Amino acid sequence: MGKFFIGIDLGGTFIKGGIVSSFGEILFSDSVKTQADLGNEKVTKNICYLITSLLEKSKMKKEDIVGVGVGVPGIIDSANGIAVCSHNLHFDNFEIKNKIEKETKLTVKIANDANLALLGETLFGAAKDCKNVVMLTLGTGVGGGAIVDGILLEGNKSAGAEFGHFVIACNGNKCSCGRNGCLEAYSSATALIQKTKDEMLKNKTSEMWQVGNLEKVNGKTAFDYANEDKTAKGIVDWYLKHLACGITNLCNIFRPKVFIIGGGISNQGEALIKPLQQLVDKEIFASEYTPKSKIVTAKLGNNAGVLGSVGLFKN
Amino acid sequence: MGKFFIGIDLGGTFIKGGIVSSFGEILFSDSVKTQADLGNEKVTKNICYLITSLLEKSKMKKEDIVGVGVGVPGIIDSANGIAVCSHNLHFDNFEIKNKIEKETKLTVKIANDANLALLGETLFGAAKDCKNVVMLTLGTGVGGGAIVDGILLEGNKSAGAEFGHFVIACNGNKCSCGRNGCLEAYSSATALIQKTKDEMLKNKTSEMWQVGNLEKVNGKTAFDYANEDKTAKGIVDWYLKHLACGITNLCNIFRPKVFIIGGGISNQGEALIKPLQQLVDKEIFASEYTPKSKIVTAKLGNNAGVLGSVGLFKN
Repeated sequence: MGKFFIGIDLGGTFIKGGIVSSFGEILFSDSVKTQADLGNEKVTKNICYLITSLLEKSKMKKEDIVGVGVGVPGIIDSANGIAVCSHNLHFDNFEIKNKIEKETKLTVKIANDANLALLGETLFGAAKDCKNVVMLTLGTGVGGGAIVDGILLEGNKSAGAEFGHFVIACNGNKCSCGRNGCLEAYSSATALIQKTKDEMLKNKTSEMWQVGNLEKVNGKTAFDYANEDKTAKGIVDWYLKHLACGITNLCNIFRPKVFIIGGGISNQGEALIKPLQQLVDKEIFASEYTPKSKIVTAKLGNNAGVLGSVGLFKN
Repeated sequence: MGKFFIGIDLGGTFIKGGIVSSFGEILFSDSVKTQADLGNEKVTKNICYLITSLLEKSKMKKEDIVGVGVGVPGIIDSANGIAVCSHNLHFDNFEIKNKIEKETKLTVKIANDANLALLGETLFGAAKDCKNVVMLTLGTGVGGGAIVDGILLEGNKSAGAEFGHFVIACNGNKCSCGRNGCLEAYSSATALIQKTKDEMLKNKTSEMWQVGNLEKVNGKTAFDYANEDKTAKGIVDWYLKHLACGITNLCNIFRPKVFIIGGGISNQGEALIKPLQQLVDKEIFASEYTPKSKIVTAKLGNNAGVLGSVGLFKN
């Protein structure tokens, strides 16, 4: 009976992997190129090569491994092990679980990459020992996941937990999903950068122009100048207001004990968390009678997915 | 070992109760007045009287009963059996579970009344045998609940599942909870009635004036005249659009197999469900790759809560 887990984080450019103990230590890790342009079979081969090389590096045998957990971006049918649609990886109903199992003779489970990161943070990171957890990842898009009474929320065919895609502003900003006013259209780094550029163009005397030109604007710019520049402060307030609205919505739906913020924007730390907590505490339903949801930043960074592999084999 | 259940639906005016089989038959039922104005102890006494009279009526013994499930409106801490806040019943951190257990010597569990109705519909009604279900109850307010992988979503201290209170329109209509733009402020019968009155005042030639005067307007009025009157049609479209937005949000979060609409508005049947299904199918995330959520009306009516008592003793 194995005691260790192999976690695989399948990204558009690199595949990261690690051998993980049940206590959340990454004993060995490695990565290879994804090479998505060379086709699904090549990506599978690269994953299997990574698994084999991790075993060799660690001098472990297949019998030492409980299973391999693979985090896949996009729409995943985890119960059936199928990558339903993953544009970056050119996956279209690809039976990735079976392919890897056949090749490696190891037990394989797959999950959406955001869900795997959430499992990692819940087992070993920002929400350790919590049974009710929500996570939002604020990057190019907005992803997320929820643990309900210790169980990962997936929905029918794992199509739920699309937390970037609920409307907070009916008739609002256009979202990549086709609707108007989704949380992603206000709370992604992409939305923040666009808002920063728009406001800079309207305010030619803003201190933010010190970055050089619009090409240099990123998700940090408005936060960097918020203390000295009114326009920057206005953008941060706009961003926090909409993000707090989305977080409050999710708290009223799930009332998690811990609410984790991950992704690039979470690097703002206290400058982000403190005002968010205040806004959410004020807006949350029946605040005088109900428990708060504690907002925290993710702890495990890029390792969350690899560590989350353990969570796929817990039940 | 008992085989039957007692379900109690505690309302502001009446307490309804029934003896229920594990197959969802209500074998005996009865009701008494709540008398909330006479205090918490009197309400408890009335519940216990109802339980005793149901046992007498059925000639059952306490040994025949697995347990008593009580649906309580308001904010409920189900794990600890406490009615945290229920304005209509004047409950303020009232240990209702212990009180009834002490008096009746039966095992008692409590739940929020909307959650108990959802359990009933999932066990015996509109979503029989489904493991992923969401329900919205459209009445004076908007309530709801969710079953995630067969488990009732409650959140920390049962403070989750407040589906009336997520914002769909940032800066929108004032909601009873203090926020602006909550689903309840657009999708409750109250909101629909207000919108109908507002539009009638703007359109003095509307056919809807046939009801007599504004006092006669109810949640059916706009639906009743939608085929013959442009103003009424506009109100129904407005209502459906916002409700579909909320349903789509919840589908993107939970991706239930079945989405149940209950409450007074659900009496519109197909006139409500058909356009809603079309709107949601169009807006739902990644619709070409993901399963639909089937929208249906609740089946069990006022019995849902009493029948749901069985669900509290299933695990």
